[in-house]
Amino acid sequence: MKYSQYVSELIDWLKIPSISGEIKYRQDLDRAALWLVGRLHKLGFEAQTMETDFLPVVFGELKATSDKEQVTKKSKKAPTVLIYGHYDVQAPEPLDEWHSKPFEPKIKNGNLYARGVADDKGQFYTWVAAIDEILEGIKKDKEDFPVNIKILCEGAEEEGSRGLSEFIRQHKQLLAADVCVVSDTHCLSPSQPVITYGLKGLYYTQLEIQTLAQDAHSGIYGGNVLNAATVLSQVIAQLKAKDHRVLIPGFYDPVRKLSAKETKDLATYPWKAANIKAEVGATVVAGEKNYSVAARAGARPTIDINGIWSGYQGEGSKTIIPAQAAAKISMRLVPFQNPAQVHTQLSDYLDTIVPKGATYTLNQLTSSEPVLIDRSSNYFKLAEQAYKSVFGQKPVYELSGGSIGVVADFKHILGIDTLLMGYGLPDDGLHSPNEKMSLEMFEKGIQTNSRFLKLLIETQHNN
Amino acid sequence: MKYSQYVSELIDWLKIPSISGEIKYRQDLDRAALWLVGRLHKLGFEAQTMETDFLPVVFGELKATSDKEQVTKKSKKAPTVLIYGHYDVQAPEPLDEWHSKPFEPKIKNGNLYARGVADDKGQFYTWVAAIDEILEGIKKDKEDFPVNIKILCEGAEEEGSRGLSEFIRQHKQLLAADVCVVSDTHCLSPSQPVITYGLKGLYYTQLEIQTLAQDAHSGIYGGNVLNAATVLSQVIAQLKAKDHRVLIPGFYDPVRKLSAKETKDLATYPWKAANIKAEVGATVVAGEKNYSVAARAGARPTIDINGIWSGYQGEGSKTIIPAQAAAKISMRLVPFQNPAQVHTQLSDYLDTIVPKGATYTLNQLTSSEPVLIDRSSNYFKLAEQAYKSVFGQKPVYELSGGSIGVVADFKHILGIDTLLMGYGLPDDGLHSPNEKMSLEMFEKGIQTNSRFLKLLIETQHNN
Repeated sequence: MKYSQYVSELIDWLKIPSISGEIKYRQDLDRAALWLVGRLHKLGFEAQTMETDFLPVVFGELKATSDKEQVTKKSKKAPTVLIYGHYDVQAPEPLDEWHSKPFEPKIKNGNLYARGVADDKGQFYTWVAAIDEILEGIKKDKEDFPVNIKILCEGAEEEGSRGLSEFIRQHKQLLAADVCVVSDTHCLSPSQPVITYGLKGLYYTQLEIQTLAQDAHSGIYGGNVLNAATVLSQVIAQLKAKDHRVLIPGFYDPVRKLSAKETKDLATYPWKAANIKAEVGATVVAGEKNYSVAARAGARPTIDINGIWSGYQGEGSKTIIPAQAAAKISMRLVPFQNPAQVHTQLSDYLDTIVPKGATYTLNQLTSSEPVLIDRSSNYFKLAEQAYKSVFGQKPVYELSGGSIGVVADFKHILGIDTLLMGYGLPDDGLHSPNEKMSLEMFEKGIQTNSRFLKLLIETQHNN
Repeated sequence: MKYSQYVSELIDWLKIPSISGEIKYRQDLDRAALWLVGRLHKLGFEAQTMETDFLPVVFGELKATSDKEQVTKKSKKAPTVLIYGHYDVQAPEPLDEWHSKPFEPKIKNGNLYARGVADDKGQFYTWVAAIDEILEGIKKDKEDFPVNIKILCEGAEEEGSRGLSEFIRQHKQLLAADVCVVSDTHCLSPSQPVITYGLKGLYYTQLEIQTLAQDAHSGIYGGNVLNAATVLSQVIAQLKAKDHRVLIPGFYDPVRKLSAKETKDLATYPWKAANIKAEVGATVVAGEKNYSVAARAGARPTIDINGIWSGYQGEGSKTIIPAQAAAKISMRLVPFQNPAQVHTQLSDYLDTIVPKGATYTLNQLTSSEPVLIDRSSNYFKLAEQAYKSVFGQKPVYELSGGSIGVVADFKHILGIDTLLMGYGLPDDGLHSPNEKMSLEMFEKGIQTNSRFLKLLIETQHNN
């Protein structure tokens, strides 16, 4: 096996501080992209960097060897797998909390420590290594390779994949595929793989309330004018009931009823109230009645106030009536809700609850569509099989509460499902100091991906 | 008349930047205090600066000339008037909005422009000038001066009169008086004087809500944990009803019912909804039903959110569930409420409305007692007479929504009423660029104070 070689290659890549959040790392971002282009060339890919509105993506393509010969026989047309990942990383601060330097990768107790190792260079690299391994085997046995591989590795994922939707829209033909695979999520433990088959959508907006032209003295004007902070609080209190139901009319209308099987899967999903309490220091886990913890997280739409501000926030006291108040409000959406409809619902509701004498503005900041992956597809079944053969255990099925905009884009622009085959672990410390990836998971990732591709090749041979 | 001399003296005093909010002006504060000591010496006062826990006060005393001779005859014991003011000023920023320099006083269109001219050096100086004028007259006519005058001029009013309550408590004997007069408020117009006979008390607290040990990802934990910003909003929405009534149990219990005369006075008080709209740019004036605008402002207790903050407040979006949220909350209290009781009422109420799983802390920041001045006292009647003779018009009676802590201290520590005889105008720009005082009001102030003191002397002579 060549794992130590793959680890060594990965370490080279990790040394490049490709931080997309700071403009001064622009050259490093380019270096990291070109490093991958070089690696893909060695594998036999046609590869290059391509410009977007923001930072370049790496695009590579490896054509199926059977494809050229038998292209006329439609039934045998090789399937195309699109592998997505990102070469950019989060800023490493606070630096003094790192035990080793973030861009000088270090192996310790079976883990590789470096910024970006789990998110996402190391996870993405399991695909490069898996392809390398398969191609070596094929060369040896002189077999054909009846699968088209396309790789899209972006440089702005940590900046909300800025520019990527537009790039995908502009390159639909180039990116056309039958299925997408992404390794940028995690397993529950080194022995318990997870397949995420649903992602929530996101509607994120900024609500601003204005009641006066300027802040007013609370002694002179108190009791006679509307206080923007009070009005905003009253509005927020009318968005969500104390029983945790969202109060926006029509909000739940498009939400599908879960099947009995899904309800059972979610109820037995091994992430419970006790996990939440331990992870974020909650003393109470509270949500909609009659739903399991995993169902609330993954299958029910939610609303949160992400930030709120108004008036005086300094030391001591200032006796003003704030003229303005604002809140960041986000909703995690489930199929078949969509951000545009939710925006209209919220806006219509605000028209009825914002009191006379106060005005409001809604500035939508970001949005993404919810995604539901077809659990009955052949690709999904191959992934299940691959996991089972490598981990010795069937994956559990997760409806994630998170949103990955690019997966929604693949679904809505390219029309394909994405298999989220993550090899991180819950304690990898993404976006935190001492980010790490377990070398055991790195190996299992390469093996699982390799197994998935081999199963796909077998399917082709058997057709 | 010596008005131009008084204006010229005042200008000297205004040139000293006695800004109590910045430590670097400490020497200027001392200079301003000593300038006043010198001026009082010239008037024949015993005067000195005295230390407090924070900045020095000026204390001066002018003993009644009849007092020494007839001290045994109790019925003729001279009354003592305590004159209170402050020699400190607000910082002048933003400097570029001033038409002339804040500490280079300038006369233009009948107004004197300078920082602190209305708040409070110029208003306070109307008393110094009035005493000067009376003493000159007495010297000429060889009359006695059967009134004791005490002056207390502090240096920290703009810093919440820090240290002053303690000073008053420690010097009860020194400050003992029959009535206090303060010129630090305003008339409605140059022809319409106001006597303020009530001030609201203040209870100002900071409420902090905590639901988690740390901020949590809204995708992973949304729907299962309490959002501190949402909880805080729900709590605030339960403090005040949409009909503007405060919902804290017991809050209104001590509030007195207004007499028919007061209700009428307040209803006809010439400050209406239209004034409020123009002054702070409100489109709607809204408050408790069945109360006039002036009654809501002066006679009804109010609650305001002065500031609120939680979570992410920067550009763009951050998908967190805030662990903590805080608000500055203040209540303006009326007789016979008091801050300690309101604190208990709020705290008891929060115990019932803050949901399980959230904790709260209340940090009281400042407080003052409400004050009601006896409108039937002789001193009050003399002030009315003085106003009427100088302005040609009876004063209107105001219950102010503002809080002046020192007036409550005079009431509760020294046991005396304070006559708020203000000579500012509503457009003086206190705490703002281009602060001014009308020279007409400066003169009328001197005349009114002089008339008040002469009426008091006459009363003594007639006794």
